[in-house]
Amino acid sequence: MIYLDNAATTYPKPARVVEAFRRSAHLYGANPGRGGYEMSMKTSLKIYSVRKKLAELFNADEPEKVIFTSNCTDALNIAIRGFAKDSSHVLTSRLEHNSVMRPLEHLKKSGRIVYDCASPGENDDKTVENFRALLSKRTSLIVCTYASNVFGDILPIRRIGLLAKEHSIPFVVDAAQAAGILNIDMEKDNVSCLCLPGHKGLYGPMGPGAMILCGDFVPKPLTYGGTGTFSKLLDQPEEPPESFESGTLNVPGIISLGEGVEFVRSVGIKTMRYRENRLIEYLYSSLREMDQVKLYNEFDGSRRVPVLSLNIGDLPCEQVSDLLGREKIAVRGGFHCNPSAHKHYGTYDSGTVRVSVSHFNCKKDIDFLLNSIKKIAKRQII
Amino acid sequence: MIYLDNAATTYPKPARVVEAFRRSAHLYGANPGRGGYEMSMKTSLKIYSVRKKLAELFNADEPEKVIFTSNCTDALNIAIRGFAKDSSHVLTSRLEHNSVMRPLEHLKKSGRIVYDCASPGENDDKTVENFRALLSKRTSLIVCTYASNVFGDILPIRRIGLLAKEHSIPFVVDAAQAAGILNIDMEKDNVSCLCLPGHKGLYGPMGPGAMILCGDFVPKPLTYGGTGTFSKLLDQPEEPPESFESGTLNVPGIISLGEGVEFVRSVGIKTMRYRENRLIEYLYSSLREMDQVKLYNEFDGSRRVPVLSLNIGDLPCEQVSDLLGREKIAVRGGFHCNPSAHKHYGTYDSGTVRVSVSHFNCKKDIDFLLNSIKKIAKRQII
Repeated sequence: MIYLDNAATTYPKPARVVEAFRRSAHLYGANPGRGGYEMSMKTSLKIYSVRKKLAELFNADEPEKVIFTSNCTDALNIAIRGFAKDSSHVLTSRLEHNSVMRPLEHLKKSGRIVYDCASPGENDDKTVENFRALLSKRTSLIVCTYASNVFGDILPIRRIGLLAKEHSIPFVVDAAQAAGILNIDMEKDNVSCLCLPGHKGLYGPMGPGAMILCGDFVPKPLTYGGTGTFSKLLDQPEEPPESFESGTLNVPGIISLGEGVEFVRSVGIKTMRYRENRLIEYLYSSLREMDQVKLYNEFDGSRRVPVLSLNIGDLPCEQVSDLLGREKIAVRGGFHCNPSAHKHYGTYDSGTVRVSVSHFNCKKDIDFLLNSIKKIAKRQII
Repeated sequence: MIYLDNAATTYPKPARVVEAFRRSAHLYGANPGRGGYEMSMKTSLKIYSVRKKLAELFNADEPEKVIFTSNCTDALNIAIRGFAKDSSHVLTSRLEHNSVMRPLEHLKKSGRIVYDCASPGENDDKTVENFRALLSKRTSLIVCTYASNVFGDILPIRRIGLLAKEHSIPFVVDAAQAAGILNIDMEKDNVSCLCLPGHKGLYGPMGPGAMILCGDFVPKPLTYGGTGTFSKLLDQPEEPPESFESGTLNVPGIISLGEGVEFVRSVGIKTMRYRENRLIEYLYSSLREMDQVKLYNEFDGSRRVPVLSLNIGDLPCEQVSDLLGREKIAVRGGFHCNPSAHKHYGTYDSGTVRVSVSHFNCKKDIDFLLNSIKKIAKRQII
């Protein structure tokens, strides 16, 4: 199989990530923060070391403010619903995944907030202008994606973060397609809360995500329960990470994620991105030569993450991905949980076939894909 | 290490559980429900097979109503907050873990509900009577534990479920200490919603839990986001399991949990329980001979799960568990996230040392523990 669906989850995982699970089952098998004996304490320390790695990677201010969640969507739900004030306005972009749009829509339908979506402009200045124009005194939160999961567009996070800072409101970033792929410096980028999956650009197993806080803004928790701390208190403890982490953590997943982070650090985000961009640039320039292939944006590696959307003539995107599937090529056809971005790009009716690479792809994979796309375009595979 | 903290998480895990993770990283590495290519579909089917195993084990009506959560507490939060109606009354027991009490207290403090806690009686008739006495027309939900995590008491779930049925309200059961340990038949036991951890009596890895629905009651979801289905819809889809499973699932954890369930089925719940009960009965009868040891209830294997709480003279429970820890015995001292049960048993000030066994413990472990307790009682270890 040629796996090109890395924006859904990276595959394969580095050997050290898989091995870490096995080791954790033997060495870190006790419930962390729940016992005073050696293995429980060793497990707590190991979990803490992953918090530390993540805080360092994203320049967050404290490891304690790295909160493990069940996935990026869970992190976004806590952040959006914990930060958005009742009767206020929330600002987001037109490129958001349903993991941002559905929580916002739910709050809107419950009569708690109103929200606006800023369009990305032809350049960063214009994008920032579009955000600024929709900000008001009623705005209690800005939430937006760092990079589109459908078209790869990178938003000018640092400058949008500055707008939030000027208005003294929290800024939540959906880093689903950015964590491990783009450099993120929470302090410099003015990010109050970074929501990320562990299993995409950080090469951890499917499962754990994180919500990382930086600065003074702290949302209300979304779930309540046993934290292993302040057992006698009927109210949820107030200190992160425990205040947000009720119940038993995904210990093996988190420990494996720690190895994923180490893998990314050892290769280097810059090196990975350069390599992956070159693959998508090569794919893009080759596809541009094919008349039947529809592309939706120039691929400029400085302004995009290595994700490309396409269609072949009028063939339904699902049919194209099925045909590629029969050639043992894994790509995704459809709407990618993101109707907003499709509306913005004029693909709301058609959807797209999405190709996304990881560190483990090579030029041969792209050549194989190109060859199959050619055959589909010429109706040699039907 | 002699591990006797199995009520926190079972350790070790069966080899097939650990091996399943490694295999899943290779064979089921694509995001389920997100792609139409072979590996994504194979992963979806594998996840579905775990839903099926759980539905069968607990006699739920449909595999689709097995919803994976990040842990048991997450499941309880969805259930309690999704079922409890505004301005209504909720009924629970005096033995509840903070995973039930804190969500209830949060709803109470938000002015949304009031709640009452029924006392367990000296027999099942009395317990059911206590529940019945607190039920009213305003009651919109009964939620209670199947077995206490501190003292092991089993509540008469089937009869409490009947009360809920008579009042046409949902019945939520916290099966943290019961799933895989006691027979649960959701249909016969009148359980509308079973919340359980995967990593205790089901021998899965720390991480995934489940909320299993049976019958007509369906709670509102707690999180919103991408489900891989109905991508264009801004509202959360309404069909379980997707309606409750936003974002990427803990795929390796769930697949490993499936192997845990197979392990439990292959040994048999009855066989396991018999063995574990005998170990705790032996511990109990030996401890009863020691003057300095305080015990809080008769150990009757038909009315308790294999969990025993104790104290040694006036020694703080944390000191006892630390001393045992130095002898390489892992038990837990403290309040076990359950102030309610301690109030009921008169141990609210002292807490307890909790001993809990799994299938992997043997008589030698108990002998070693007994010997160390003797030494502590005689102040030979300080």
